[in-house]
Amino acid sequence: MKTLILIRHGESEWNKLNLFTGWTDVDLTEAGVKEAYEAGLLLKAEGFCPEMCFTSYLKRAVKTLNQVLDAMNMDWLPVQKSWRLNEKSYGAIQGLNKADTAAKYGDEQVLLWRRSFDVQPPALAMDDPRSPRQDPRYNEIDDSHIPLTESLKDTIERLLPYYRGTILPAFEKHDTLLVVAHGNSLRGIVKELKGMSNDEIIKFNLPTAVPYIFTFDDQMKLVGDRFLGDPDAIAAKMQSVANQAKRS
Amino acid sequence: MKTLILIRHGESEWNKLNLFTGWTDVDLTEAGVKEAYEAGLLLKAEGFCPEMCFTSYLKRAVKTLNQVLDAMNMDWLPVQKSWRLNEKSYGAIQGLNKADTAAKYGDEQVLLWRRSFDVQPPALAMDDPRSPRQDPRYNEIDDSHIPLTESLKDTIERLLPYYRGTILPAFEKHDTLLVVAHGNSLRGIVKELKGMSNDEIIKFNLPTAVPYIFTFDDQMKLVGDRFLGDPDAIAAKMQSVANQAKRS
Repeated sequence: MKTLILIRHGESEWNKLNLFTGWTDVDLTEAGVKEAYEAGLLLKAEGFCPEMCFTSYLKRAVKTLNQVLDAMNMDWLPVQKSWRLNEKSYGAIQGLNKADTAAKYGDEQVLLWRRSFDVQPPALAMDDPRSPRQDPRYNEIDDSHIPLTESLKDTIERLLPYYRGTILPAFEKHDTLLVVAHGNSLRGIVKELKGMSNDEIIKFNLPTAVPYIFTFDDQMKLVGDRFLGDPDAIAAKMQSVANQAKRS
Repeated sequence: MKTLILIRHGESEWNKLNLFTGWTDVDLTEAGVKEAYEAGLLLKAEGFCPEMCFTSYLKRAVKTLNQVLDAMNMDWLPVQKSWRLNEKSYGAIQGLNKADTAAKYGDEQVLLWRRSFDVQPPALAMDDPRSPRQDPRYNEIDDSHIPLTESLKDTIERLLPYYRGTILPAFEKHDTLLVVAHGNSLRGIVKELKGMSNDEIIKFNLPTAVPYIFTFDDQMKLVGDRFLGDPDAIAAKMQSVANQAKRS
């Protein structure tokens, strides 16, 4: 029996302000820290014992993982960080308000940028100070890999080599793995695991800071998946994410 | 030019209660979290850019490192954790009050357990619930390596293979490394770096949450070492550690 636990990071400052975040390295809110810690308490109460953890290069994911591990009393667990688990790049609309952007370009265009499978938002200029190619944390990664904008398809394509080449092989040594990342990078893993179509995955909204448990048999055949926690609270979180781009 | 930054974890709950801690996995106090964050701010203000971090399996060190990285805005840095960086095991006196223990066994005996080079405190019984051999986090480590008590000499002996075999070789790829650990495991590194005698190292008290900077030339010859921060505050912290075992 193998177990993969996925957790989307808790509420971030820019989630709260309703800004497009993408690769911008914004912090968790106090509520985000709290929901992350509670996710850890849930995992602990149900007796989950991850043996290895994976997260992105973005602090809202790293700090969510830190809170989860602390709540589980497992701060000592090995953690591997990868830019491939980063959120989808929103390119030049990073930092813009979602409702304002919808008012300016129309709900439909923004929905395409947010929820189409293969439409990219406008790209960052190479020398834009917001560009990750200007950020020393990505120095060791070939520029050609570092996106200036991404569709969900692009995000999944750069995620999969890490998922298939690093995360899945860790099951050879371990029974339980924990991945703390972002709405869109985790969509890539969920799509792969559940064999979802492009249409299905764009309609799928992962709630923040809710452990999503995938169980496999010893041949790594998926035998079940479920969210941990109160179903009504989870449904409300999913709805809130789906509503974010609507004008108000 | 190469730089090694050592930081002893911030104040822990048991530092505050004046209990022998050793391998017990106690948390930071609020003051400990704060001084850790301030250590990170100091490093950031002076422009230090570690490329890789090392810490122990104990949450007071892991969480100190997390605070330092967060203050530096470098939560994304790779971190490697090792039990070999753990604090000296205080064996069967773990959990006892330092002043009470001094009252019972005499200042001299306690000073031997705390500050002699090669006297071990009484060992934990193999089946003591406090024994690390009962703790799943050490499952992958051969029991013969997992101490039931340690002298400073023992601590240094189990630390050195990691320091020489993992930390130092990381300078082949990196210029700046950060190690966040414990009073006695860091003593091992300081002794090695400064060629201190056994007598010198037992008298050396590392202040909590103060970055200790070692600079090397490209041949890894030590060219200097200094603490970062206000000298008076640092001296007061060193004195406070030295005073802890005295009865009051």
